[in-house]
Amino acid sequence: MKLTILGCHSATPLKNAHTTSQVLEIKGHLFLIDCGEGTQIQLRNRGIKFSRIKHIFISHLHGDHFYGLVGLVSTFRLLGRTADLHVYGPKGIKEIISLQLKLANSWTNYKLFFHELDNKSSEVIFEEDSLLVKTIPLDHRVYTNGFLFEEKTGLRRLIKEKIDEYNIQQHHFQNLKLGKDIQLEGGQLLKNEAATSDPHPIKKYAFCSDTSYNEAIVPLINEVDLLYHEATFLEAHQNLAKTTKHSTAAEAAQIAKKAKVKHLLLGHFSSRYADKQDFLKEACPIYEPVSLAEDGKEMNI
Amino acid sequence: MKLTILGCHSATPLKNAHTTSQVLEIKGHLFLIDCGEGTQIQLRNRGIKFSRIKHIFISHLHGDHFYGLVGLVSTFRLLGRTADLHVYGPKGIKEIISLQLKLANSWTNYKLFFHELDNKSSEVIFEEDSLLVKTIPLDHRVYTNGFLFEEKTGLRRLIKEKIDEYNIQQHHFQNLKLGKDIQLEGGQLLKNEAATSDPHPIKKYAFCSDTSYNEAIVPLINEVDLLYHEATFLEAHQNLAKTTKHSTAAEAAQIAKKAKVKHLLLGHFSSRYADKQDFLKEACPIYEPVSLAEDGKEMNI
Repeated sequence: MKLTILGCHSATPLKNAHTTSQVLEIKGHLFLIDCGEGTQIQLRNRGIKFSRIKHIFISHLHGDHFYGLVGLVSTFRLLGRTADLHVYGPKGIKEIISLQLKLANSWTNYKLFFHELDNKSSEVIFEEDSLLVKTIPLDHRVYTNGFLFEEKTGLRRLIKEKIDEYNIQQHHFQNLKLGKDIQLEGGQLLKNEAATSDPHPIKKYAFCSDTSYNEAIVPLINEVDLLYHEATFLEAHQNLAKTTKHSTAAEAAQIAKKAKVKHLLLGHFSSRYADKQDFLKEACPIYEPVSLAEDGKEMNI
Repeated sequence: MKLTILGCHSATPLKNAHTTSQVLEIKGHLFLIDCGEGTQIQLRNRGIKFSRIKHIFISHLHGDHFYGLVGLVSTFRLLGRTADLHVYGPKGIKEIISLQLKLANSWTNYKLFFHELDNKSSEVIFEEDSLLVKTIPLDHRVYTNGFLFEEKTGLRRLIKEKIDEYNIQQHHFQNLKLGKDIQLEGGQLLKNEAATSDPHPIKKYAFCSDTSYNEAIVPLINEVDLLYHEATFLEAHQNLAKTTKHSTAAEAAQIAKKAKVKHLLLGHFSSRYADKQDFLKEACPIYEPVSLAEDGKEMNI
């Protein structure tokens, strides 16, 4: 898994501070998470091929998380896209995009599927053999979901030396990978563990923005490899965080600690703070390791 | 009058090629003309005070001319704006913006007036003592207006030497400025022309984008000081210009010539052309003076 931050700032885009958008490379997919104004330019800046994006996940309908979507949908058409596009987001997102296409007397020359969400409990919204995506219901001023991207446990791995030692024939490989014991050509039963090792450990990435401090998400994000959690404010503005249903850096760290995540990534910073290091200073005493998101930052998970 | 080009490229925004938006400084106003995605960042790049923008004119509902509007409207609120905002644009623009504010559970803390246009004839849409704005109906794939920004003829100007020579008292000044003859204190009649000169010449700016070649606009833009006319294509793609209802550089020059405009400014370039000088090469033989729009370019009219 590889995460690329396209934008990690709150409220309004500035020249060098883009609003929320991320690209997650996972099992051959390139998932776009949120799509603030100007995301299509950020994609170009990072040299990301537009055609590889087939699934877009939108957390909520505040502008700094989706005002770039309609432009991207339009640009896909202008680029001659034919591949299907799936958009997952709150109920209403289809009406917003469709209305603008209709009034522009425009259309998409590819199939555009909207998967509108209104469930207040976590649900699986995307699944295939090797991965699934679940919603993480968040507590914000409007209906909002975070997203959990979770690899599925893969096949057991053949141990090359054991394969040679027991002279195991190729037609046994699939059963071994599936965890089955096999009968060797000489009639001897071979226990699976003798020739295989555990599957690659699975990875999990949780995206949680925007949200107030909300312990209800802890079981959903338990022990994830990376948690992106919003930290709009510092402790000095804790009251503002409460009234606007955002989090402070310390609150994000509390959630990370309770969920025993492996790494915390803070983002969605308010532009009022000149020195972003203050977010680290407030989070570190509560939880480590912790990093700050930056536009353009890449992280291997 | 001063024109600032924020973006002059067609279709989709690129890192260094912004879609259509302009700021016109005229008689103390700062008018925003069209508002492609990322316009608010361009405004910041140019150091333009957001609070000075009170009137926004939108030509048509294709994304490269208005996808930045909803973000700007939202940012105005976040900046604590209280002044009224007037948006002039095609019918439907109110529904698009209102729907997005409603679904975001948001609002504006200033009065937002939509002046929706559906008239196919030219009409005055803004007027005050010193200037007026008229629509220029254009021929594009959707309902589209250009805009004519026109100063009104001002007052006659007092000639200081003559005022002194005839010892004209101050209470006569207003009548002189209004073009009236006056009776001097000695009883002598003084013809207006003896003590005044003509008013400052009025200036006119016409914005015409997007449109196919359309001679119907010629009477409306006759002898304007500056004509911004779209030139999406070069002659090599004349057929494409026809089918998409855009213009070539040569067609824009033909319109400028027929309307005897004082200066032609080409814009709305397709990104397919690496060398923008080719637009000049095709326009110059037909009409001069002609310039190319550039993002960030400023022109005193």
